[in-house]
Amino acid sequence: MRDVAVVAYGLTKFGKHGGSVVDLLSEAGYRALQDATSSVSEVDALLVGNMSSGEFEGRSGIANAVVSELALEPAFASKVENTSGSGGAAFLLGWSGVASGFYDLVLVMGGEVMTVVSREEATDIIASLTHPVEYAQGISLPGYAGLMARAYQHRYDAPREAMAHVAVKNHYNGARNPNAQFQKEITLEKALESPMIADPLRLYDFCPITDGAAAVLLCPYEAADSYTEKPVLVRGVAGATDTHVVHEREDLTAMRAVRVAAERAYAMGGLGPEQVDVAEVHDMATILEIVQTEELGFFRRGEGWKAAMEGATSLEGLKPVNTSGGLKAKGHPLGATGVAQVAEVTAQLQGRAGARQVSASKGLACNVAGFGNSAIITLLEAGE
Amino acid sequence: MRDVAVVAYGLTKFGKHGGSVVDLLSEAGYRALQDATSSVSEVDALLVGNMSSGEFEGRSGIANAVVSELALEPAFASKVENTSGSGGAAFLLGWSGVASGFYDLVLVMGGEVMTVVSREEATDIIASLTHPVEYAQGISLPGYAGLMARAYQHRYDAPREAMAHVAVKNHYNGARNPNAQFQKEITLEKALESPMIADPLRLYDFCPITDGAAAVLLCPYEAADSYTEKPVLVRGVAGATDTHVVHEREDLTAMRAVRVAAERAYAMGGLGPEQVDVAEVHDMATILEIVQTEELGFFRRGEGWKAAMEGATSLEGLKPVNTSGGLKAKGHPLGATGVAQVAEVTAQLQGRAGARQVSASKGLACNVAGFGNSAIITLLEAGE
Repeated sequence: MRDVAVVAYGLTKFGKHGGSVVDLLSEAGYRALQDATSSVSEVDALLVGNMSSGEFEGRSGIANAVVSELALEPAFASKVENTSGSGGAAFLLGWSGVASGFYDLVLVMGGEVMTVVSREEATDIIASLTHPVEYAQGISLPGYAGLMARAYQHRYDAPREAMAHVAVKNHYNGARNPNAQFQKEITLEKALESPMIADPLRLYDFCPITDGAAAVLLCPYEAADSYTEKPVLVRGVAGATDTHVVHEREDLTAMRAVRVAAERAYAMGGLGPEQVDVAEVHDMATILEIVQTEELGFFRRGEGWKAAMEGATSLEGLKPVNTSGGLKAKGHPLGATGVAQVAEVTAQLQGRAGARQVSASKGLACNVAGFGNSAIITLLEAGE
Repeated sequence: MRDVAVVAYGLTKFGKHGGSVVDLLSEAGYRALQDATSSVSEVDALLVGNMSSGEFEGRSGIANAVVSELALEPAFASKVENTSGSGGAAFLLGWSGVASGFYDLVLVMGGEVMTVVSREEATDIIASLTHPVEYAQGISLPGYAGLMARAYQHRYDAPREAMAHVAVKNHYNGARNPNAQFQKEITLEKALESPMIADPLRLYDFCPITDGAAAVLLCPYEAADSYTEKPVLVRGVAGATDTHVVHEREDLTAMRAVRVAAERAYAMGGLGPEQVDVAEVHDMATILEIVQTEELGFFRRGEGWKAAMEGATSLEGLKPVNTSGGLKAKGHPLGATGVAQVAEVTAQLQGRAGARQVSASKGLACNVAGFGNSAIITLLEAGE
């Protein structure tokens, strides 16, 4: 396998855009192509992570639409759908295309337009990823998160405030990210007093409904100099799944797909969690950030909540997590997230993260599909 | 890049099933695993070609559902959507995963359940792949095919009967395929007198609405002996796109994506169209089979219609095309088609095609997305 580099990225502002995801994807893709130091008028393939353009806006085949908008025909183009992990899956498959030697230049994109339907419709569309029997019983994604939070608090004697600390930290970071949906700090009190959504989780424990898109350009590492002065090496990438039916899982406070994918990615990269300087994780709900920081090996099982309260995951902490603001504050356009995470880690490793910049030479992105149904982990390292 | 082999396949019967595509995919996947000569209880990845499970039946994240149904967790799993070329795109990406050395065993699947909505709703869902402006003008996929047929007849002085010959031949072949939706021969008169759909094309010029699924198992060629006595080598695979907006294309009688993808696949495989013994092509409408046999280089531009009338593409002809019955008679469950085509060529190369068996050592599958928006070509060869 060839070493693969991330050499450029592009994002739209995350927030409320409306319109079509084809337009946002084209904007992010154009920005990624512009971000390269040499002019790029051809790519070999274009992979688009997107969950539900059909349900949100009645469009399918969006990869063919985007390749045309960017005048990149006859490049191969396809959409990749892995629910909220669509962007991560597109990245993994795009990486594989370059690693194999099949493709020399791949544009991996992710995007979603969600605000064109009501919140109730959006909840229904998102819940289409759950097992039909579970959804029929009335549980949605926020409901699973509430159950997990309750079980986690009970087992590890974790205070409610720990989750709120994640929200406060991610809003702090989002306020330093010009592309974030929410660029406003919040207080612990505000998070704790926000409306109840899924006991014990409240409004500020959840990511918003967001429109947005992201893109990254991949090429063989040995050719990276043609496109950037600061190539970022893909040290590892791996995906894994857990049961589709959540109630069949052994442990409601665990995320097996994240643990297995991380083990695989670390093994592939020849490094461990202690060497990761910065990470983007999938905080669809605050409790999920805490659990993921444990499954990724950053903290011991049952101790992620302490790390969150003590500031270990803040910009100034030992292990900064979600410097972008995370899904919580940056926003979570479903298919965009996995690619936006890679773009944020790339920005950090290239020293381009502005007011939220941390000191980092290695970073990790953890994109989760569904409620832990699947996870894709990417390990990145600043090139020489 | 490593050589990759197709070592097993599985299909459901094509036709009217209803229910969920998750069930059909699981059935096809199970059959493919059973088709291997050694017991397979683990795969590295599972890629599922599917266009619109969200629109047809309100389910997303079906790859995670299928991996669970087959108890293949924690294998990586993702859906790949490229409209009617979803199966081909899933195959290309699965092939790349094995070729790169990243994965050793990949289950590539494709499936669609379409009969759970009305014909009018199905037409709307399928048309969501077209450019919104064109669809707003009233043109649907059959409409494009009608325009192409008219232009082709005019330019090449081709008789209306040429298209009907394709329908008759594909019904003849379908009658010899136990998995085909239509296993009944038809006469030329019946095809020519069927109800008008998009002048000059009639009902028998079009594929039906179909439920079905298909799966193939891929591994490195050097490991193929573990799974089969008759490995099939992937000699070439390539994808290409054309403009999303059909009226921007230079020539309404051409399919540029097919031509470019074929050129790439032939170059990769080091062989030409004259060496292809058997082919499955994307006959969503009869005219498309004729045009594809030209773009693939089987016949000269403007002469595909003569080949169709003279029987060159029949089971007994020099270049048998759509031995399975094609989309016309086997049926066209959108996401299944690209994988089912590979399964049919594999069956032919392994000598397992029963009453429709032809003599073949090399075969080709041509899966088209949309109205030529994209094409994926696979070249297969019977192993030593």
